[in-house]
Amino acid sequence: MTGSIDINGARLLQRLEEFAAIGATKAGGVNRQALSVEDRQARSLLAELAVARGFRVYQDPVANLFIRRDGMRDDRPPFLIGSHLDSQPTGGRFDGALGTLAAFEVLESLQDRAIVTNGPVEVVAWTNEEGSRFTPGVMGSMAFSLGHVLDAWQNIQDAKGTRLQDAIADTLAALPEAEFRALGTPIAGYLELHIEQAPTLERDGIPVGIVTGVQGTRWLEIRVTGQAAHAGTTPLVYRRDPVVAVTTTLSALYASIMPNDPEARFTVGRMSVDPGSVNAIPGSLSLTIDLRHPDIQRLDAIEALIITLFQSACDTNGCTLETRRTFDVAPAIFDETIIQESENAARRLGLPFRHMISGAFHDALYISRVAPTAMIFVPCRDGLSHNEAEYVEPEHSISGARVLFETVRGLL
Amino acid sequence: MTGSIDINGARLLQRLEEFAAIGATKAGGVNRQALSVEDRQARSLLAELAVARGFRVYQDPVANLFIRRDGMRDDRPPFLIGSHLDSQPTGGRFDGALGTLAAFEVLESLQDRAIVTNGPVEVVAWTNEEGSRFTPGVMGSMAFSLGHVLDAWQNIQDAKGTRLQDAIADTLAALPEAEFRALGTPIAGYLELHIEQAPTLERDGIPVGIVTGVQGTRWLEIRVTGQAAHAGTTPLVYRRDPVVAVTTTLSALYASIMPNDPEARFTVGRMSVDPGSVNAIPGSLSLTIDLRHPDIQRLDAIEALIITLFQSACDTNGCTLETRRTFDVAPAIFDETIIQESENAARRLGLPFRHMISGAFHDALYISRVAPTAMIFVPCRDGLSHNEAEYVEPEHSISGARVLFETVRGLL
Repeated sequence: MTGSIDINGARLLQRLEEFAAIGATKAGGVNRQALSVEDRQARSLLAELAVARGFRVYQDPVANLFIRRDGMRDDRPPFLIGSHLDSQPTGGRFDGALGTLAAFEVLESLQDRAIVTNGPVEVVAWTNEEGSRFTPGVMGSMAFSLGHVLDAWQNIQDAKGTRLQDAIADTLAALPEAEFRALGTPIAGYLELHIEQAPTLERDGIPVGIVTGVQGTRWLEIRVTGQAAHAGTTPLVYRRDPVVAVTTTLSALYASIMPNDPEARFTVGRMSVDPGSVNAIPGSLSLTIDLRHPDIQRLDAIEALIITLFQSACDTNGCTLETRRTFDVAPAIFDETIIQESENAARRLGLPFRHMISGAFHDALYISRVAPTAMIFVPCRDGLSHNEAEYVEPEHSISGARVLFETVRGLL
Repeated sequence: MTGSIDINGARLLQRLEEFAAIGATKAGGVNRQALSVEDRQARSLLAELAVARGFRVYQDPVANLFIRRDGMRDDRPPFLIGSHLDSQPTGGRFDGALGTLAAFEVLESLQDRAIVTNGPVEVVAWTNEEGSRFTPGVMGSMAFSLGHVLDAWQNIQDAKGTRLQDAIADTLAALPEAEFRALGTPIAGYLELHIEQAPTLERDGIPVGIVTGVQGTRWLEIRVTGQAAHAGTTPLVYRRDPVVAVTTTLSALYASIMPNDPEARFTVGRMSVDPGSVNAIPGSLSLTIDLRHPDIQRLDAIEALIITLFQSACDTNGCTLETRRTFDVAPAIFDETIIQESENAARRLGLPFRHMISGAFHDALYISRVAPTAMIFVPCRDGLSHNEAEYVEPEHSISGARVLFETVRGLL
């Protein structure tokens, strides 16, 4: 079997250090926002390492970066492995970088051992996964899955007024050694290694998560309007208090949604009352709901429950309800074959694993719409991510890369 | 009996029109903020009318304005009737003005009929009841009840940087015809006519409210701190969500406090979550509570219940609780004799009345600490106040003034 052929773990750890130095923050994290000077430095370093190993480098119109190692049948579409190189403004060293550099380590290990794969294998670094400088995120993989850049992106600027399209053009120009390639070329599949960004693997002592899908996500904006009135002079019977309607409803929803459905995630992230005076019953209360579930029918059912309970509480409290769905991404179900091969890989390596659903967005979400896709998660300390203190044990980084390597070898 | 001797209702309505013209807003309200040019115009007009009737005019160090009509026994302390002349920036024509001008109508009617009271009667217009330009409000009556100006007021400025003490000095100087008087001179009692600022009298068709006290008020600032976390990746068991702790607690408090105690008022006026991101469990939630009750022991008991339930929900949800009492005014219980005389007056006039508790602050709150005090309420349309649309039916303004007149005659 293949278990005795391994990646170079020490090299991977060294690469992680090298890339963590690009945009390094004093607190030990990285600030390498999408299409920034630091992002370009990271792309250039990866391209330089690739060229040194004889791999070809490509960029597409949204500046997704590809590093290609040919296979026996070079006419076949490539199998993609990778993640992203951009970070949050106060991000960690591993979010995106681990998946990209582990994929590059797979490519190097294949090259070291002169392993001939059936089809080509490409490392990909998707553009602007984080969406912190230019909103929205997962932009590169979205454009790749659509096969074109969205018209709406024409007007996107960062906080300093830099236009997205100029930042993309400058990024493309900064890597003249890369060949240009159309968006959305056919691919055989995609496998992404990523940190879990939640504490469950770490707390249960499991080094490998085989990700079988991504939760669907809906964002709702809810506004409950009652009537502003004097806190002291207004008796209960005359109150039309939106805070009563909202807190009563949320209390019921918190008691019913998540306790009865372990796969559901129900979060109120924003709340604001108007006018917000200590001695006035507010006239209105606005809030946002982030609802996630891997099953689209359950998403529908829970959203309907939310609306029903809010409407009922508004009726009871003399309030009016406005709801708006501001974001809606259907769940992704990952590819059975890649999942199976990942399991086989973990078993061969003697690494405990479990199936899990990703609660966060990843580039794999969009790629799964157009090609067989899966993900592998490794634990991160305390589940911390989007945080300069983000940390992955060296053994877990290496385990993840080994599973990636074994899976690619099994598939190709 | 006295019922056949009446006030001059038409004159009162005309005075209300004259004073509504001072600081009149386009939307039909008034902007006559404390110690402003408009406030001084109103004071000057009242002083002018007073002098024309042969009454003496006084000011004290905080610019409380007094108009005196002597009684048979001029050595006795005066009985005060009145309210305030300042308004909110977009205030109504009746809040304060009705009580002040009805009191002046009482003085004029006594004069018209050459009625000799036992002791002196004085109309008072307290300085800065509203507190919208210079915070805090009920400043004139507070200083009167204390007998001195608070040291802390030295540093008070309005939004334009005008110092309170300069505005007071300029206001005093603008009325040179007024004699200067010390703060907190002894008084025999105080009776204030005011609009209800709530809809209960109007909706129940009752023209007169005999106010037996003012609710005590406590303001609490509550901060519940959990842990910010990713909305998608964080399962229920790892959540320390302050929104859950707060909404669960508030839902229970809304269900228990006011439904079980018709005299209690429980209002959450401000809520804010941090960081306030749609896809993040907030790290903390801050809110304010305005709690009112006429019984100080019930205030204590309800406040204890609030803290207990918040603490319990914080314990359940892995959150920490901080609470701070930012405002605490004890309830006022009004004087039995004045209340009884007001009832007799309403009965003699054939006006339906009911006893009620004031939920709002009034100058009478502070004066009740130092002298027998009561209030009379009249209905205002839809309970609207602090609003340019504030409106009182002419018959209700007149009824209020008649009860005031009858009560003063009964007492003196």
